[in-house]
Amino acid sequence: MTIAPSRDTTLCISLAGRPGTFGVRFHNHLYQQLGLDYYYKAMTTEDLPAAVAGIRALGIRGCGVSMPYKEACMALVDEIDPSAAAIESVNTLVNTQGRLKAYNTDYLAVRQLLEQHGLDPQTAFALRGSGGMAKAVASALRDAGFNQGLIVARNEQAGRQLADVCGYAWQPELGDLCPPMLINVTPIGMAGGADAQALAFPHAAVAAAERVFDVVALPVRTPLVQLAEKLGKPVITGLEVIALQALEQFVLYTGIRPTPEQVESAVAYAREG
Amino acid sequence: MTIAPSRDTTLCISLAGRPGTFGVRFHNHLYQQLGLDYYYKAMTTEDLPAAVAGIRALGIRGCGVSMPYKEACMALVDEIDPSAAAIESVNTLVNTQGRLKAYNTDYLAVRQLLEQHGLDPQTAFALRGSGGMAKAVASALRDAGFNQGLIVARNEQAGRQLADVCGYAWQPELGDLCPPMLINVTPIGMAGGADAQALAFPHAAVAAAERVFDVVALPVRTPLVQLAEKLGKPVITGLEVIALQALEQFVLYTGIRPTPEQVESAVAYAREG
Repeated sequence: MTIAPSRDTTLCISLAGRPGTFGVRFHNHLYQQLGLDYYYKAMTTEDLPAAVAGIRALGIRGCGVSMPYKEACMALVDEIDPSAAAIESVNTLVNTQGRLKAYNTDYLAVRQLLEQHGLDPQTAFALRGSGGMAKAVASALRDAGFNQGLIVARNEQAGRQLADVCGYAWQPELGDLCPPMLINVTPIGMAGGADAQALAFPHAAVAAAERVFDVVALPVRTPLVQLAEKLGKPVITGLEVIALQALEQFVLYTGIRPTPEQVESAVAYAREG
Repeated sequence: MTIAPSRDTTLCISLAGRPGTFGVRFHNHLYQQLGLDYYYKAMTTEDLPAAVAGIRALGIRGCGVSMPYKEACMALVDEIDPSAAAIESVNTLVNTQGRLKAYNTDYLAVRQLLEQHGLDPQTAFALRGSGGMAKAVASALRDAGFNQGLIVARNEQAGRQLADVCGYAWQPELGDLCPPMLINVTPIGMAGGADAQALAFPHAAVAAAERVFDVVALPVRTPLVQLAEKLGKPVITGLEVIALQALEQFVLYTGIRPTPEQVESAVAYAREG
C-alpha cells in the first residue's frame, strides 16, 4: 500500500553525525507495508539543543539518536526511561504533545536477544569495548542476571568504570583467557574503519568459545563472525541488534508492532540500501 | 517516477496556524513528477522562534509561512528579500547552509499575474482589504505602476496606513464608486467563513467593472467570481495566486522551474485534496 504524503503525515527523524541508510529504509518500508501515514527522514545537526527544541516545536513524533549526540541528549528531555537512565545514554526520543521522553532501544534490543537466543545467565563472558554501546550491552547482561563478566578495554578509565558499575572485572587485554562467550562492542571489523580486516578476539579464544556476539552491523559478516561461523559457533550479529532496536523505535513511534514477516521484509529492504 | 525516501532526501515544510492541503500535494506531486529526492511536510507550531531555530539546526531546506506567523518571522531570519521587506510580511524561508533568507512569493505571484493578464497600469482599481495579503497585492500593484488606487477597508488605521504607504486613497466603503477593476483581498466568499455567501463588492459595481480579481482560493468560484463570470467579465482567481506563489517557492527550494504542463498537473492534483 502506498500512502501519499498528506497534511496529517506524522514525521519521525534521526540525528547522527554521519546519517546512515538503515533507519530511513527500515521505517519507511514498514510505514508503506502497514499503510501508516508516517514519514522518516535521516538528519544531522551542528546545534543539538536547537535541533531538539525544533523537534518539540515542529511536532516531530520521534527521533533516533546516534553518535555523537547520545549523552548530550539527556539534559534536553523531559523524562528518561529506565532503559536510558541506567546507562546514561539515549538513542530514541518520543515526543508526545511537546513532552520528550528518552529511551535506549539498544539496551532493550540486547535484553530481548539474550532471551531469544536462550542464553544461560551462568555463562561467563568477555565483552570488548567501553563506549556508549558497550554500556548498553553490559547493562543488559547485568540486568539479565549475567554476573561472571570481564570488560576488556584498553581505555583503563572507561573500562574500569563500566566494570565497576556493572559489577564485572576489567582487563586491558583478553590475554590467554578463553571465556565461553565473546562479545565485541568495538568498531573492530567495521567496514571503512582502520581495523576493518582485524579480529576483535584472538583466534584461539574464538576456537575455544561456545558463542560469539558481534555488535558491528556493517558488514554483518565481520572477520570475527566469519571465523566463528567457520568454526561452527552459534553467532549473534549486529544486524540482529540494529533491526531489533529499530523495531522497538517503530513500536514507540507508532504504537503498532509489525509481524515477524513484516519486520523481516523491512530488514531485507533496509540492507539493500 | 517514484523516488523512495533516502538518507539524502531534502525536507521542505510549511508552518501555518491551520495547515492546508494545497502545498503538501502541490510540492510532493512535482517532486515525484520531476524525480527529485525532496519531501514536503505541512506543520504547525506554538513556538515560532524554536521552530525557526529547528529549521536551521535540522537543515530543513525551505519553509512556507502562513498566518499567523508572517510578520513574526521577520525578526528570526538572516536576510530579507525585497519581496518581503517592502511589505514587512514573509511567506517563504529558504535555508542555505544554516543561513535563512525570507521572501514573499505572494507578492511575486501577483506581480507576475498582473503582467500575464496584460493589465494596463493606467487602470483605476478598488482593493478591498487591509491585512497581510492586501499589503502584498497593493504593493505589487504600486510597483507595477498602478497609481490610481483606492483601498477599501473598514479598519481605518490599517486601511489608511496601507493606502499611505502605496500612495493610494482610502475609504471605509466603496459606496457608489464603479472603478474598472475590483480586487477582493478579504475572506469574504471564503468557504467556512462567516461571509461565505456574501459578495465582496456590490452587484452594481461588479456589473460596471471591466475586470474582477478575487484572492480567495477556497472555493475558486466565490460568489464574486461567479457573478463576474455570469456577467462576462474577465476574472483573475485566487487559485492563480496560490498556484503561482507555490511555484515560486518550488523554484526557490529546488532551483528548478517546472514546465507549464507539469505545474498544471500539480495544481490539478493539489485541488483534489
